[in-house]
Amino acid sequence: MRIAQIAPLSEAVPPKFYGGTERVVSWITEELVRQGHDVTLFASGDSETSAKLAACTPEGLRLLGYRDHTASHLAMLHQIRRRAHEFDVLHFHIDLLQYPMFEDLNHKCLTTMHGRLDVPDFMPVYRTFTGMPLVSISDHQRLPMPKNANWLSTIHHGLPKENCPFYPEAKGGYLAFLGRISPEKRPDRAIEMAKRSGVPLKIAAKVDKADQDYWDEVIEPMIHHPLIEYIGEINEEQKKDFLGNALALAFPIDWPEPFGLVMIEAMSAGTPVIAFRNGSVPEVIADGVSGVVVDTLDEAVEAVHRVKTMSRAGVRRHFESGFTAEKMVHKYVSAYETLLASDGNVIQLPAAAAFAPQYGDLNGSSRPSLTAAAMPA
Amino acid sequence: MRIAQIAPLSEAVPPKFYGGTERVVSWITEELVRQGHDVTLFASGDSETSAKLAACTPEGLRLLGYRDHTASHLAMLHQIRRRAHEFDVLHFHIDLLQYPMFEDLNHKCLTTMHGRLDVPDFMPVYRTFTGMPLVSISDHQRLPMPKNANWLSTIHHGLPKENCPFYPEAKGGYLAFLGRISPEKRPDRAIEMAKRSGVPLKIAAKVDKADQDYWDEVIEPMIHHPLIEYIGEINEEQKKDFLGNALALAFPIDWPEPFGLVMIEAMSAGTPVIAFRNGSVPEVIADGVSGVVVDTLDEAVEAVHRVKTMSRAGVRRHFESGFTAEKMVHKYVSAYETLLASDGNVIQLPAAAAFAPQYGDLNGSSRPSLTAAAMPA
Repeated sequence: MRIAQIAPLSEAVPPKFYGGTERVVSWITEELVRQGHDVTLFASGDSETSAKLAACTPEGLRLLGYRDHTASHLAMLHQIRRRAHEFDVLHFHIDLLQYPMFEDLNHKCLTTMHGRLDVPDFMPVYRTFTGMPLVSISDHQRLPMPKNANWLSTIHHGLPKENCPFYPEAKGGYLAFLGRISPEKRPDRAIEMAKRSGVPLKIAAKVDKADQDYWDEVIEPMIHHPLIEYIGEINEEQKKDFLGNALALAFPIDWPEPFGLVMIEAMSAGTPVIAFRNGSVPEVIADGVSGVVVDTLDEAVEAVHRVKTMSRAGVRRHFESGFTAEKMVHKYVSAYETLLASDGNVIQLPAAAAFAPQYGDLNGSSRPSLTAAAMPA
Repeated sequence: MRIAQIAPLSEAVPPKFYGGTERVVSWITEELVRQGHDVTLFASGDSETSAKLAACTPEGLRLLGYRDHTASHLAMLHQIRRRAHEFDVLHFHIDLLQYPMFEDLNHKCLTTMHGRLDVPDFMPVYRTFTGMPLVSISDHQRLPMPKNANWLSTIHHGLPKENCPFYPEAKGGYLAFLGRISPEKRPDRAIEMAKRSGVPLKIAAKVDKADQDYWDEVIEPMIHHPLIEYIGEINEEQKKDFLGNALALAFPIDWPEPFGLVMIEAMSAGTPVIAFRNGSVPEVIADGVSGVVVDTLDEAVEAVHRVKTMSRAGVRRHFESGFTAEKMVHKYVSAYETLLASDGNVIQLPAAAAFAPQYGDLNGSSRPSLTAAAMPA
């Protein structure tokens, strides 16, 4: 198939620093090429790919110092629009700007939704341009969306098999916390899990500017304890050992995480995940097999002991059964075929419907009102 | 003529608080209606107009708490696109998003550029969508733009005649500084002008969050002086007296201001303007008639004495000759006619060419590089 992958221009593909979307776009692109497709990657000029690279800006816009990224994306879309006839499928990974410009090409377009969808600011586009075929990265992610959204599929993210290699033994015997120090990631809960279970915790996480107060006032005072070790930010290479030697990944999130790559990175290493029931968590973890899904801190502490008896090979098998890049790309190719066969009118039953009653509980009154975003007729 | 005025959705038209663009859109709209045109205003639902209001969001997006305004504007443009056949002319006052969506309707579209155009972030759109007919709000504003920009006209802003009524005498005898406290507005220079000339200065200005440090560290320590009075933010009603009773408006800017509404507000009141040569300044002030254009602080101090002999009636006449809303709208209607007669291919000789050598001097090495924004072919 002749496929255009359309990446955000903020970072290179793969990203030189942080950039979850750009990492996933890179994995999809490389695996599509490996599976024999003719792929063109529209991305920043410092991207690296085995596909054909259509450089749409010399470097990632963040490195160029651009604060407003709209114009560069509009110019990229203009280029793609002119070349649209060269492709069977146009696969977008950017947020919003493609909806109006490709409305008449919806039969060969799809957009993967990489972020949370309960932000009222974005709702006017979802309500207006209902024809764009969409892929969610978890069923749960779909819940806030309008009922007539044109869902093509849910496709969980997948990781190249050897990115986080399998570690048969948890040599370190610690709980691992990996990511950002921020209130919605709840590192405080991870610290409590360690203190109450008596199992050490290693925290490998960066502190963004926006979260400096939270670090200073809440987390930093909690880490002066013999069981807690804060090791700062780590790179991709260090991540392998960090996850592979852990007894379990602590994933005590308190927000509707649309996917959560670190869960499958841990599972790839054979490390079970102890995660709070939020967002994609119940879809990604096979409860009792690749980790434990908990609702309370008590359950999380209990789970720390329970994972000691869990088979790391079983965890890895769960990863391989559904969360490799190869599996992800098979699903995308099926989705492309469904799209082309349906001429764009794909509206599949929202699998997320089953989650609806739960959603209110999860977010309660803190969920931003969606109705405020409604446009007058 | 059947005219669509397309306003930003961030604030109501006219704005309830700050919002230069929304004020100008309101003046254009009301005057077009007064001159007998059939006008539809696309704007937020809390806008007030004698035109037909097409409400595109219940309230201004800032009041709704939206941080990302892209989706609401895309939805508005979608609505306009569907109704485009109802209008002879579509007049945009929003930044970028209309370029791709209206490319095939350029023959009946124009965009007024309200901001500075030397921001590299936006250049990819100006380089890509070269067909959009453009109106600059000063000749100087055009300088950073690509040579093949499709300029329709320069139309200086105009003010309703009675907004800032004529004050025949400068009863207060003070210098007025009106606007924001920020480094590019150079209130420090205004303070120096007062101290060195011995003429009192009144500062009516707000301090935005972004400028709090500048206020605390630079300006606040300078205002403890018998000649300097800081009176904070003032409303439209207070502005009449504040400008009307002033000996002169101090406009000591240090950035390429694309227009500078406060200059014509002062001139409307009969108050001459002492302004540093930057951006639109030499186009707006008739040097020696409605104010003095200066290059140095010494010249500015000298000008404080010079304006005492200037005829306030003469200042008002200069305002009336070129900067009323009525004059502005006559020019817009001519521009609409030029547009329709030319079928969109208007590229008029850039009047700004005469300024080109000066531009480098004005901005020196601090001007952001424009070439960095170039897209690879």
